[in-house]
Amino acid sequence: MTFRVTILGCGSAAPSANRHHTAHALNVHEQFFLIDCGEGTQDRMRQYGISPLKLNAIFISHLHGDHVFGLPGVLSTLNHFGRKTPLHLFGPAPIEEILQFHLKHFEQNLGYPIVCHEVNARQESLIYENRVMEVTTIPLRHRIPATGYLFREKTPPLNVDKAVIRRHSLSLAQITALKRGEDILLADGTPLPCAEATYVPYPPRSYAFCSDTLYSGKVVRLIHGVDLLYHEATFLDKDRPLAKETGHTTALQAAKAASLAEVGQLLIGHFSSRYKDDSLLLDEARTLFPNTLIAREGDTITLAPKRHPRAAL
Amino acid sequence: MTFRVTILGCGSAAPSANRHHTAHALNVHEQFFLIDCGEGTQDRMRQYGISPLKLNAIFISHLHGDHVFGLPGVLSTLNHFGRKTPLHLFGPAPIEEILQFHLKHFEQNLGYPIVCHEVNARQESLIYENRVMEVTTIPLRHRIPATGYLFREKTPPLNVDKAVIRRHSLSLAQITALKRGEDILLADGTPLPCAEATYVPYPPRSYAFCSDTLYSGKVVRLIHGVDLLYHEATFLDKDRPLAKETGHTTALQAAKAASLAEVGQLLIGHFSSRYKDDSLLLDEARTLFPNTLIAREGDTITLAPKRHPRAAL
Repeated sequence: MTFRVTILGCGSAAPSANRHHTAHALNVHEQFFLIDCGEGTQDRMRQYGISPLKLNAIFISHLHGDHVFGLPGVLSTLNHFGRKTPLHLFGPAPIEEILQFHLKHFEQNLGYPIVCHEVNARQESLIYENRVMEVTTIPLRHRIPATGYLFREKTPPLNVDKAVIRRHSLSLAQITALKRGEDILLADGTPLPCAEATYVPYPPRSYAFCSDTLYSGKVVRLIHGVDLLYHEATFLDKDRPLAKETGHTTALQAAKAASLAEVGQLLIGHFSSRYKDDSLLLDEARTLFPNTLIAREGDTITLAPKRHPRAAL
Repeated sequence: MTFRVTILGCGSAAPSANRHHTAHALNVHEQFFLIDCGEGTQDRMRQYGISPLKLNAIFISHLHGDHVFGLPGVLSTLNHFGRKTPLHLFGPAPIEEILQFHLKHFEQNLGYPIVCHEVNARQESLIYENRVMEVTTIPLRHRIPATGYLFREKTPPLNVDKAVIRRHSLSLAQITALKRGEDILLADGTPLPCAEATYVPYPPRSYAFCSDTLYSGKVVRLIHGVDLLYHEATFLDKDRPLAKETGHTTALQAAKAASLAEVGQLLIGHFSSRYKDDSLLLDEARTLFPNTLIAREGDTITLAPKRHPRAAL
């Protein structure tokens, strides 16, 4: 039941010694996803023990180099390591054209299929779904088409209350029916409504990735209530005109988004290299949203399941 | 009068923790050149104090990802840092097509011109020349068109022997004439041949870069007498069939090339990740060519000028 984000890189366009370009790795129930893929992402994956072979899908926010120049290396290494299973790649147009050009010139003998999905960066839509999670796009406002991604765990299967099982000496068939969400009849003919006997073991968890973007009210609406929000915060609020000009957000604006959206925790990053002291950006964000952290390379943020009180009985 | 090679990366295609993909930086008289550009080259340049802004030209051996996936990042960072001066880019076709595609999608507002030169990977030719150095191609034998590069310092300007100046109380005009290679007349009418009064202060230095390639007798001929040879040595000689199949050289073959070409020193690298112990490859090469070194990331090899004995007087 893992739900974990590892920061592989969180620098902005100007590279610096301590901040590599953007890439986050997401582990949901031991299924692995990559979000953005700046240059050197495969190095950081190796460094932090995340095998590229395990990747289910890669989600690209936008086609600026600092979010995508590591993709050729990852695709090539997967081939080198003998991957056979399909890899899903999501991103705004013209990602398909860029992928096809790349494959033609550099991967004539690719041993695994890449299923490329061009996403519409102008509207929210469900783009990926598996047994435990679904992913929807978050339209962002940047200099080129850009999309954030909201990763939302599905509601986990119902648990049957152990005290109820004992009280009524429920059979396996009865328990299975309750788990399926059905009401049942007890041996004496009394009905037992599913809602009385079962509970959701923990609320589904969610992670939103929003980079690069101007502050956007629409984003706030789409990420409401997420447990963890990564929001870019390229500038300090004193440089807001520069943020506006370049299509970025200030730390204060990121905190405003987190606060209005009532998220659980805010991660900020993508800081301009002009700021030598990260804590200025952190302090600024915390004035509005105290539960803010800096996304630091190598950090892993685990969203532990908040277990239902009946699960402990 | 610097002539210095810095190893930025020397791993083969399969990435590993200690060996990044190929890139060498060459400094000839404080002019800077990059040879190949594997992923993360800009990181290593920063790490080893080589400013990408100072680059005069980039030479790409061939269009396999492990030799070229760092190029987009370097080009982008140069733009970010405000480069205005033209950058020369050399490599086999279709490097021009790949560059144009890249610029169209990722660098619509490039602030400096890139002058792309497609080199003929089938024949030796002089492709670059400046005041102090010339570069010729070395046709290699790989799975795709590949070329090595021979960097040869030009013969330095003549020095006038200080003892001769003193003996004949030469004037500035006479010294200048001698430096230009002219014979002169002394005050009493005696001729002073240039050859008697001048000397070449040090022999021109040279560096050959040969990767990736099968062993080739033609290469041996073209690199004869170079001071420093970097030759790939992907395999041990026991795996020679694999080397042949993949278009690579064994450590023993690299040493054979160095020995037959009577080079000053051999640098080997591009080792397959199958070998956990580099020293096996080094030992094998040294059986044939003792003055062999392993190219290790961050190492700098300086070719000091071998000064003419008269320079010390």
